[in-house]
Amino acid sequence: MPTISQRGLVMPASPIRKLVPLANAAVARGVKVYRLNIGQPDIPTPEVGLDAMRHLDRKILEYSPSEGLLSLRLKMKDYYSRFGIDVEAEDIIVTTGGSEAVLFAFLATLDPGDEIIMPEPAYANYMAFAVCAGAKIVTVPSTIEDGFALPPIEKFEALITPRTKGVLICNPNNPTGYLYTREEMERLRDLVARHDLYLFSDEVYREYCYTELPYVSAFHLEGIDDKVVMLDSVSKRYSECGIRVGALVSKNRELRATVLKMCQARLSPPLLGQLVAEASIDAPAEYMSATYEEYVERRNFLIDGLNRIPGCYTPVPMGAFYTVARLPVDDAEAFCRWCLSEFDYEGRTVFMAPAAGFYSTPGMGLDEVRVAYVLEKHELADALLVLEKALEAYPGRKA
Amino acid sequence: MPTISQRGLVMPASPIRKLVPLANAAVARGVKVYRLNIGQPDIPTPEVGLDAMRHLDRKILEYSPSEGLLSLRLKMKDYYSRFGIDVEAEDIIVTTGGSEAVLFAFLATLDPGDEIIMPEPAYANYMAFAVCAGAKIVTVPSTIEDGFALPPIEKFEALITPRTKGVLICNPNNPTGYLYTREEMERLRDLVARHDLYLFSDEVYREYCYTELPYVSAFHLEGIDDKVVMLDSVSKRYSECGIRVGALVSKNRELRATVLKMCQARLSPPLLGQLVAEASIDAPAEYMSATYEEYVERRNFLIDGLNRIPGCYTPVPMGAFYTVARLPVDDAEAFCRWCLSEFDYEGRTVFMAPAAGFYSTPGMGLDEVRVAYVLEKHELADALLVLEKALEAYPGRKA
Repeated sequence: MPTISQRGLVMPASPIRKLVPLANAAVARGVKVYRLNIGQPDIPTPEVGLDAMRHLDRKILEYSPSEGLLSLRLKMKDYYSRFGIDVEAEDIIVTTGGSEAVLFAFLATLDPGDEIIMPEPAYANYMAFAVCAGAKIVTVPSTIEDGFALPPIEKFEALITPRTKGVLICNPNNPTGYLYTREEMERLRDLVARHDLYLFSDEVYREYCYTELPYVSAFHLEGIDDKVVMLDSVSKRYSECGIRVGALVSKNRELRATVLKMCQARLSPPLLGQLVAEASIDAPAEYMSATYEEYVERRNFLIDGLNRIPGCYTPVPMGAFYTVARLPVDDAEAFCRWCLSEFDYEGRTVFMAPAAGFYSTPGMGLDEVRVAYVLEKHELADALLVLEKALEAYPGRKA
Repeated sequence: MPTISQRGLVMPASPIRKLVPLANAAVARGVKVYRLNIGQPDIPTPEVGLDAMRHLDRKILEYSPSEGLLSLRLKMKDYYSRFGIDVEAEDIIVTTGGSEAVLFAFLATLDPGDEIIMPEPAYANYMAFAVCAGAKIVTVPSTIEDGFALPPIEKFEALITPRTKGVLICNPNNPTGYLYTREEMERLRDLVARHDLYLFSDEVYREYCYTELPYVSAFHLEGIDDKVVMLDSVSKRYSECGIRVGALVSKNRELRATVLKMCQARLSPPLLGQLVAEASIDAPAEYMSATYEEYVERRNFLIDGLNRIPGCYTPVPMGAFYTVARLPVDDAEAFCRWCLSEFDYEGRTVFMAPAAGFYSTPGMGLDEVRVAYVLEKHELADALLVLEKALEAYPGRKA
């Protein structure tokens, strides 16, 4: 049999997916599974987005420009300006989901053996894309005790080598819900300026900031215009993860020209998704505020509920729709597995993502889980009850 | 400024795209440009495909499974069986266009420095994806004199090194329209079997075979089930290039598992495109036959017309909707450029793709162009007239 590439062999499988067969088996047994493990919102897609398809008046579903439809990019420019992000349409390259923005950013900037530095826990798929580029992500652990704040900048500095090409953050953060402060962002700015590094900033959750703290985009930082690469997606903000429309935004012309060559090789981003995304930017203010209010309420409810369960602790996330919680167990993955395969409370169980999969440092996050609040409040209430009962019944519970 | 990766620097820009600004400028001057340069069909998308969007009854445009919707994969299995391709749904991984199938096939099998062998001229974007994987494509020239038949297998054999991992073909061929014979396919089979190589077979034009010669899929070859990787797309067969739905089809489990890890990292292929593709497989037989007849007629008309122009020659393509023609010029790229920037005949000109961009061997294809027949016959007639006039007027025409 012909061989598999080295990158194919070392590419990590998704840490969340390994429990999916157990969840499916639980459903097959008739158990109701509360899916707190995923980032698929249950919020309806805006009607204006769906209408763009229902009223589709094209005869040919043809290639769109490799950089994305100009009309969409102009709308995105306006959208960003609402957040004080001052970019031109030409700075915006439409990608096939935020995923492709990450992949192309890495392929365009990282040679095999190059490194980027990232706080952990972090979105696991960054690792897979780094493996595609032959690059290495080195991580600086943030901790639940510090509420997952940015670790001291000296810890980033200490990891810089001649191969370091960038720093990667997700803000607001998946999986922790942490929102970086202006001071933290400025420390990152000074670091990338000092060492001439890229600042890759994944800002797909910007709509969802719940405290009076401001959202500080990498584009709000002064003096690093040639270093900022913003990674974005419409998936989460309009609940349209399936349309695969994201963006890579940068004022660095040379980088954009390189990414554009990759975009041309793959011909075009999805046309239909772009039409939906473009229409969705006009979603009424009530849609956006209702979605926001819904998440605020769920967040308050979930965080309060988790912290009331004996032995559980979670900091209060300031953004996104996830939190990382510590459970009174030694091995959260074993507990999650047990919940799906051996436990149910009155025919119900919970599916959570073991947080160790979001860390690279061995031993980190072993007693933590990521919980997404993408279920309605009454379901979250039920899930919290089931989780409490599961922890009571779990043989591996810590004293 | 932070640096660009080596692969980003060496990645070739699309050879067709460099003339696009000239074509746009011609249009801006009021010149009608016949676009013979692209593979964007002018045929309407099937109504059943468009209706799938018009009747979209989903509330949330959510992630689809990473491997693609099961309902689509089951329909694709049936579709393939019509061509005597016997695969299961589990052998089919839905990709974001055929492009992603090529990229993931390369990333999953090729390490930096690895090589694949391919006859040229060839679809230029293979090169870009090989660069992404750090791999090298070495080419065996086919020639217009031989009608672009498969070069002697000994020429492939002579290029095999310890780093050779596969052979890549496109059948029916883009850009030449050549359809590999059973004998040629069997020679390729024996070669990959002898050296334990992958046979990457891009078969996106299978609908369009115009002679009594059979379409021989790589899956029709016996004894190399673990070596065949079929690359496919619905773009050309249903005139829906913009929906970005393709497939990687293989019976090699290990390869599929590796590709699936990449698919999971990018979460899912486009949902809306999959719904359109699934519906389009039910396009009525009349749609498929009318499209086929249309291309047959255009092909006959174009080939005949090209060969009537003094000094022009093109072999008769057996499939796809392109042909490579030799022109009575020394530098076809200069001629194409001249047509767009300095020439018009009664306000009209032609945009053709210089064929040198489809060859890697320096000096090959300098007097050739690729002509796509994706325009209606009356437009092709007009384009042929304009081309004839252009060749008469061109100062660089060969005696």
